[in-house]
Amino acid sequence: MQLYFSPLSCSASVRICLYEAGVPAVFTQVDPRTKRTLDGADYRQVHALGTVPALRTDDGEVLTENAAILQYVADTFPQAKLAPEGTRERVRLRQWLSFVGTELHKALFTPLLDKAAPEAAKAYVLEKGASRLAFLEAHLTGREFLLEHFSVADAYLATVLNWSAATPVKLDAYPAVHAYHARLLKRPSVAKALSEERRLYVAEQERYARGA
Amino acid sequence: MQLYFSPLSCSASVRICLYEAGVPAVFTQVDPRTKRTLDGADYRQVHALGTVPALRTDDGEVLTENAAILQYVADTFPQAKLAPEGTRERVRLRQWLSFVGTELHKALFTPLLDKAAPEAAKAYVLEKGASRLAFLEAHLTGREFLLEHFSVADAYLATVLNWSAATPVKLDAYPAVHAYHARLLKRPSVAKALSEERRLYVAEQERYARGA
Repeated sequence: MQLYFSPLSCSASVRICLYEAGVPAVFTQVDPRTKRTLDGADYRQVHALGTVPALRTDDGEVLTENAAILQYVADTFPQAKLAPEGTRERVRLRQWLSFVGTELHKALFTPLLDKAAPEAAKAYVLEKGASRLAFLEAHLTGREFLLEHFSVADAYLATVLNWSAATPVKLDAYPAVHAYHARLLKRPSVAKALSEERRLYVAEQERYARGA
Repeated sequence: MQLYFSPLSCSASVRICLYEAGVPAVFTQVDPRTKRTLDGADYRQVHALGTVPALRTDDGEVLTENAAILQYVADTFPQAKLAPEGTRERVRLRQWLSFVGTELHKALFTPLLDKAAPEAAKAYVLEKGASRLAFLEAHLTGREFLLEHFSVADAYLATVLNWSAATPVKLDAYPAVHAYHARLLKRPSVAKALSEERRLYVAEQERYARGA
C-alpha cells in the first residue's frame, strides 16, 4: 500500500488511520506546488487532478478522494475498528465524513489556507464557517468522538482542526471542539503522524524559502 | 420516508433517486432564507444546521448530508440499482460523490450561487474550478455515466451541473460534460424531478419578490 501525501494536508488523516491499523505502507511525498514527488516524478501521472491523498492499493489500483480512501482503509483493516459496524452507524459515519469534507475542509479551511485567495474570499468563508463550527460544538458537547468510538471521521476532523493554527479560526471560542482537538492530539497515532509530518512540512517550507 | 428539500438545491438529487426507485415519499419544502417549512415549522428543529437535504426514515431517524443520504437511498432500495455492487466499485462511487460534493458543489458552485459572496470570492473559485471541470471532462469523454451504469453520483452531478445556467460557468467549453448533462436532463427521473422543482423555484422567487 502506497500513500501519496503532502505534509499536514488532509492526507495526514490517512496516515493516522494506517498507524491505527498498524499496517506497513510506503509514504510518497508530493510537492503541492510543483505536483512532483520528492524524487522528481510527475504526480499528475498518478492522479491527474494533482490533489492528495491518493492511495495505491496492493493490487495497483489508485484510489482518490479522502472520504473514499478513509472508508477503504477502514474496510480493508476491520480489526482496527476504524468504522462502526452497523448499517445505520455507517450512514452516520458518512454523514460526518461529508460534513468535515464539505463544510469544514473545502468551504472553510481551503480558502483560508490558500495564499492566492483574496481577503474578501477569506472574510466570506470565515463568516459562513461560524455556524458550522457552532453546529460541531453542539454535537461534540459531552462526547469523546464524533461517533461512539474513534473512527476515520475523527482522524479527518483532527487533521482539519489542526489547520486552525494557521488561520483566523479561533478554536477556543468553541470549548467542546477545542477540548476534543486537544484530546485527539494526544492520541498516539495522531501525535506520531502529525509530529512526523510537521518535520516534513518545515523542511518543505525551507526548500521553498531557498527557492528550490 | 420524508425528504426535506429546497427547490433545485442539491436535495433534488435525492428526489431523482426516489423517482428512480419508484418509492413513495413525502416532500417537505424548506425556505432556504427563513429556514422554515412552507407550513411555517422551524426546520432547525429537524436539522440544526438548516441545510437541505434531510431525510426522515420510516423509523423516524433524521439523516443529513447529501452523499450519506444518497448512499442510504441506494442501499435501502437495491432493486433500483442506484449503486454498483462490488466492493471496489463502491469505493469508486464514494470517490465521485466526494469529488462532486467537495470540488464542484462546495468549492465552486456554492460561492457562485451565493448573492452574498463578494465578486473577488467568485472570481477566485471560478479560476480554481477550471481544473476540476477539465478533470471531469477527461473522465466523461467516451463514457455515458460516472461509473458503468447510472448511479446516485450521476443524480448528484446532474443536479450540480444544472446550476451552471445561473453562474458564469460555461459548460459548453467542456463538450463531454455538456453532452453528459444534456443526456441526463432527458432521463425521465431527472426530467420529472427538475421540472417539478423548477415550478416550485419560480413560485419561491415570486414569494421573495412580493416580500413574503
